[in-house]
Amino acid sequence: MSPAAETLTAERIIEATEEVLRRHGPAKATVVDVARALGVSHGSVYRHFRTKAALREAVTKRWLDRTHDALSGLAADPGRTPEERLRAWLRALFEAKLRKAGDDPEMFATYSVLAAENGAAVEQHIAELTEQLTAIVAAGVAAGDFAAPGPAVTARALFHATGRFHDPCYAGEWKRPGIQDEFDAVLDLLVRGLRR
Amino acid sequence: MSPAAETLTAERIIEATEEVLRRHGPAKATVVDVARALGVSHGSVYRHFRTKAALREAVTKRWLDRTHDALSGLAADPGRTPEERLRAWLRALFEAKLRKAGDDPEMFATYSVLAAENGAAVEQHIAELTEQLTAIVAAGVAAGDFAAPGPAVTARALFHATGRFHDPCYAGEWKRPGIQDEFDAVLDLLVRGLRR
Repeated sequence: MSPAAETLTAERIIEATEEVLRRHGPAKATVVDVARALGVSHGSVYRHFRTKAALREAVTKRWLDRTHDALSGLAADPGRTPEERLRAWLRALFEAKLRKAGDDPEMFATYSVLAAENGAAVEQHIAELTEQLTAIVAAGVAAGDFAAPGPAVTARALFHATGRFHDPCYAGEWKRPGIQDEFDAVLDLLVRGLRR
Repeated sequence: MSPAAETLTAERIIEATEEVLRRHGPAKATVVDVARALGVSHGSVYRHFRTKAALREAVTKRWLDRTHDALSGLAADPGRTPEERLRAWLRALFEAKLRKAGDDPEMFATYSVLAAENGAAVEQHIAELTEQLTAIVAAGVAAGDFAAPGPAVTARALFHATGRFHDPCYAGEWKRPGIQDEFDAVLDLLVRGLRR
């Protein structure tokens, strides 16, 4: 079956765009390249994404979402105490970012360019992550383990205080020896700050 | 008295270089520009700084040092408890960065370029800042106010956890409404983590 014979979905367009970005880089990738890779007209692509900007935003969102799909399970894991959930969640976020940056530095750089262009997608991604953290903090307060003035405010503080271990602007630090010890030191301090 | 008639010191060369950077930007500023601004030959400048890179590093260091000269007094202030010192020191660091970025965004961008070129000067700057933080944490432990596994490790954790409020990569966030509340939330969480 030729690619064009399959039904053209938003999902297939996003996948093809990722491949085109990989080959051409964020500056040069065009909708025509995407259409060519799919064996369809560029008009067909525009029927799913009205502008190139909308397509790039969807690709960015998908890349960001890959992180928190894996995390949402940890945030709600009834087999762990809230403190264990918090530690596992923050560690998993750091590890996901480490993998993304380390396994494919070129695509990481490409997506960093896309993320800088798509502030709204990044904001939404961060809002979803801090919602998960809020649920963990609220569970800890409900269990009597944590004292937090307000779970949402505290969740944002946790997210901000661990920026060194998930914000792409620190990707250059993640290969340094000692980064795991630095992570542990910050996490221990924050957990002590949360405990009743 | 013409500028050339004054004794040519490293300090005067650094000041002139700052002025040249302000006028020409980091990409175009040359040692010849600096010499011209001082009314001396470029050989005279090279007698104080053997290379253009050495001069740029000295300028970077001076700019960075301006932050911690003001902070060292706070770190050792006997009129405040260690917790008060810690809060005042972290707030003063944030405010110094806010001022630098807000009052003169062009020079802040210029110095961010220089800082990226001069990793060693930045490392030394951060080492000096975390030494001051270590002294505050150690004083808190000695006073029985703080529990910290090791003051130096804890000081680095405090520095890393507050990166959003002093690292130039976040300068774009500092103008957002709510940034002061975010700072307070992180600081409160960290202070609770330090208390015995």
